[in-house]
Amino acid sequence: MNEKIKWLRNKLLGLNMQGMIITNPVNIRYLTGINAEGIFIITRKENIFITDSRYIEHVNAILTIEDGIIVANIKDLSLEDYENFFIFCENVGFEESHLTYAKYKEYMHKFKINNFEETEGFIEKQRMIKEPEEIENIKRACKITDDCFEYLKTYIKIGMSEKQIAAEIERFFLENGADDVAFETIVASGKNSSMPHAVPTDKLIEPGDPITIDMGCKVNGYCSDMTRTIFAGFVPQNIKPVYDLVLKNQIQVIEMLKEGSNMRNISKMVDGNIKLNGFEVMHSLGHGVGLDIHEYPFFSNNVDFLLKENMVITDEPGIYIQNKFGVRIEDTLLINKYSATPLTKSDKKYVVI
Amino acid sequence: MNEKIKWLRNKLLGLNMQGMIITNPVNIRYLTGINAEGIFIITRKENIFITDSRYIEHVNAILTIEDGIIVANIKDLSLEDYENFFIFCENVGFEESHLTYAKYKEYMHKFKINNFEETEGFIEKQRMIKEPEEIENIKRACKITDDCFEYLKTYIKIGMSEKQIAAEIERFFLENGADDVAFETIVASGKNSSMPHAVPTDKLIEPGDPITIDMGCKVNGYCSDMTRTIFAGFVPQNIKPVYDLVLKNQIQVIEMLKEGSNMRNISKMVDGNIKLNGFEVMHSLGHGVGLDIHEYPFFSNNVDFLLKENMVITDEPGIYIQNKFGVRIEDTLLINKYSATPLTKSDKKYVVI
Repeated sequence: MNEKIKWLRNKLLGLNMQGMIITNPVNIRYLTGINAEGIFIITRKENIFITDSRYIEHVNAILTIEDGIIVANIKDLSLEDYENFFIFCENVGFEESHLTYAKYKEYMHKFKINNFEETEGFIEKQRMIKEPEEIENIKRACKITDDCFEYLKTYIKIGMSEKQIAAEIERFFLENGADDVAFETIVASGKNSSMPHAVPTDKLIEPGDPITIDMGCKVNGYCSDMTRTIFAGFVPQNIKPVYDLVLKNQIQVIEMLKEGSNMRNISKMVDGNIKLNGFEVMHSLGHGVGLDIHEYPFFSNNVDFLLKENMVITDEPGIYIQNKFGVRIEDTLLINKYSATPLTKSDKKYVVI
Repeated sequence: MNEKIKWLRNKLLGLNMQGMIITNPVNIRYLTGINAEGIFIITRKENIFITDSRYIEHVNAILTIEDGIIVANIKDLSLEDYENFFIFCENVGFEESHLTYAKYKEYMHKFKINNFEETEGFIEKQRMIKEPEEIENIKRACKITDDCFEYLKTYIKIGMSEKQIAAEIERFFLENGADDVAFETIVASGKNSSMPHAVPTDKLIEPGDPITIDMGCKVNGYCSDMTRTIFAGFVPQNIKPVYDLVLKNQIQVIEMLKEGSNMRNISKMVDGNIKLNGFEVMHSLGHGVGLDIHEYPFFSNNVDFLLKENMVITDEPGIYIQNKFGVRIEDTLLINKYSATPLTKSDKKYVVI
């Protein structure tokens, strides 16, 4: 049995749960390495991945005896099998944010569960602390992202469309070792950069445009996340002070982050500084990154959260002037005992193409 | 108020429900045209789409007064607003297959709902019968898919990787008027074709490989779905009889389909024929297609279902020989009063590249 499943079994023991049904596919991948449709159940004696004919061959190919995971084909399971999985289990855990109400009822009946208990995302919380292998995957995704940015400096030209640049970024990722994009790439130029979640359009890059590029890829399922606002031709005078303010805050956050930093205090500091300068705060300062592009922990002004070594988070302050322009600068950072290490390392000072 | 929302209000009346919370984003798009994160609520007097700052501008831009839909920003809603939405409502419907257990509990409390009732997918069932405009969108998606197949016949060469071909298919779709792919494109060559849901790998196309390509795109949200197994260089003798058997069944199904056909009988006929020839049946014969790539109705050996005019379904028999090869041939079909029309029309007889 692998270390993650051992951890989970211990955790269940402590919560007086004798079994669990795991339905969040990202948690299943985290615990087992399996990236396929199905559910993962922990019974008193066994760890069973229940899937269908489409995935049986693939899943058997990636698992070894050491994994201690049984693969079951859903069509081979009888009503009796279901009833036996959790027999003599008083409490069985489930993932209330990753199970529909319909499936909740179905599982209750099918597995004949006495007490089906919410688990409040404890696997997601465990995923916050990254293992060396996980960090390695994130670093590789960040390296591909940096290489892509380096390439974009020569690729992007005035007259290209946002969509064309976004497609080129995705092509670069896939051709340079990424499994996939980590999220829909944002390329927002000119006025469009004033929308934090802009979708790439047919708008062409014009001289004087700021271009906000928010991009990331996946390596073995692990994500990178980086944003840069660059400039076409020249840096307009009215954007400079905004850019400098965003960058100053972004760097200051990196300098303050380490094990024990309270995300709430840092978030309040940056939001306060942006407001003090007369701008509005449009989104949070950042979020955890791992198998999900947005995962625990999250920067918030309302909740205390102390960072720990080997957490990976983003630092992404942004300022948006409606209908005019926006600037956002974001890195993916590794939290260390006494510092934070940027895993994305691309230029941050006035990149002009 | 549009016709679809009028239909929904009538339906609720008949079920003695005074309100509903719609959380399936595809149903929201179907009813309102809105393609954005949020929930759509039907109260006694109003139709309200609740979303956040990211989407307010976009949603307001696509709605007109005639739609009769109010757009609310989630951050402007007070606890009292939530409590007032369903005041004096005895029964409020919800979508039990599109609401997590956690959200179910949250909404019960937040909206102070007396009786929160399951609605058993009645909107999904309504979506089975396509309006002319919906059929038009599916036809356009199918046409782009056929054009892509035509292009692939000259594009695919021995020595290319599955991943490269899949990426080219997606590029073709986006550059030829599709909004998006309808699902992750499958390109499975040689042995990989024996897995019905293979993911494209770095494997290169070799002479004698069967190549199963399962692809589809979206136009205004509506999907196409087509599969062809083609051959690199030549058609191996051992694959021919399997190919012929799959094709014979696929064509026979098209000939039998029309309003009133029972999907169960047709499914049993094909499965029986495949088994009679000594092969295993690995997946169902097909499914409805629309705003979802897999939607009602589904072919099944266990449930009677009589087709109706203007339903759109796939016909996709497949045979898979473990560790050797697989063949699948699939079209998207429109059901008519006395026949079925293939909306994907690409070659089905031994395509060799």
